[in-house]
Amino acid sequence: MTSKAEFVYFDGRGRGEIVRLALAAAGIEFTEKHLVTREQFLALEPDLLYNQVPLLRIDGLNLVQSSSTVRYLARKANLLGDKEPDIVRIDMVYEGSRDLMGGVFMGIGFQYDETKLVDRLHIVNKYLTVFDKLLKDNHSTGYFVGNSLTLADIGVLEPILASIDYFGKEVLNDYPEVLKYYNTVISLERIANYISAIRKPPNSPEYVSNVKKVLAF
Amino acid sequence: MTSKAEFVYFDGRGRGEIVRLALAAAGIEFTEKHLVTREQFLALEPDLLYNQVPLLRIDGLNLVQSSSTVRYLARKANLLGDKEPDIVRIDMVYEGSRDLMGGVFMGIGFQYDETKLVDRLHIVNKYLTVFDKLLKDNHSTGYFVGNSLTLADIGVLEPILASIDYFGKEVLNDYPEVLKYYNTVISLERIANYISAIRKPPNSPEYVSNVKKVLAF
Repeated sequence: MTSKAEFVYFDGRGRGEIVRLALAAAGIEFTEKHLVTREQFLALEPDLLYNQVPLLRIDGLNLVQSSSTVRYLARKANLLGDKEPDIVRIDMVYEGSRDLMGGVFMGIGFQYDETKLVDRLHIVNKYLTVFDKLLKDNHSTGYFVGNSLTLADIGVLEPILASIDYFGKEVLNDYPEVLKYYNTVISLERIANYISAIRKPPNSPEYVSNVKKVLAF
Repeated sequence: MTSKAEFVYFDGRGRGEIVRLALAAAGIEFTEKHLVTREQFLALEPDLLYNQVPLLRIDGLNLVQSSSTVRYLARKANLLGDKEPDIVRIDMVYEGSRDLMGGVFMGIGFQYDETKLVDRLHIVNKYLTVFDKLLKDNHSTGYFVGNSLTLADIGVLEPILASIDYFGKEVLNDYPEVLKYYNTVISLERIANYISAIRKPPNSPEYVSNVKKVLAF
């Protein structure tokens, strides 16, 4: 059973970016197939449980639902914690990071305009306050649980990187623990490689237009 | 370490109902504390990671994020599967059930009117089609994965019960595998007990009004 995987999605962030990040963090090599026509998407349907992408082909499986896919990868790489309450803490932080993504960054260019993102900065700050406290409570190790990378760190990194993209790095100024976490995590070789070589840029109008064409909405 | 738990939420379904169902399915006894005043909610804040309920006090932990809480309970009761690909299949079905809840039933009385639910029946049918196929592919055992209850079955039961509440049992008529699953699962003693003694009724205007008062929105 090889770990070489094929990731099928659009050439942008959306619901696929967290899967790319988890693949990188788990040290799993993968290729990407980008959907650019409606026909490509329709041809894929038999492999899509809910008729949705991203799709990850790995270990002979067709994985959908980005959080299920991410947990699968995290299990392979032992990033889910090995005992309670670490396991549930990692899960709660990860789920919070999904709420932050959904409440602020998902849908940019689709449901709302990125120039209006500043209206959602208070939501970012609410979560940064929580994250700062959690990191401090974890003895300021630079990680959310224990003293090495887990799915909690992976989940939070996505909205942190997006916050820096859209609001500038000063968004972290009032959150020293988050800043320490950020500097710790981006220094890891796999994460540094993700940021420099794998991560997609923010949505462009062309990207949004392509997704709408492929999904026919 | 006792498994007696305290569940803190409103006296209604919302994001709490799946936790009640998981508690029942895991065979864990619990009491409920219902929030009826703003002051009660404010007093709870130190125990709420993201300032959100439901909260489950169990094993000395304060669990939030309903899906994290449900997975914690499912781990305790061995309902997450014991090997791949069962584990990831259970997770993907569970996540699909959350999308169905979010796309159709969450927010009734809050963001939209239950009389307009029929506009969303096509979403229910889309998922019922997927579920029917999955159940057939699992050798028509009446369960989603293997031949006993898992988190997949628990997750799907919530929107199935809600669909029957709002659309009538005939909503399952074209989905024989889902009907078999439904009859199988509701016959289990713990699930039968959940339905008869634990499950909350649909949202009333008074319930919605109370939630808005407590959360100040």
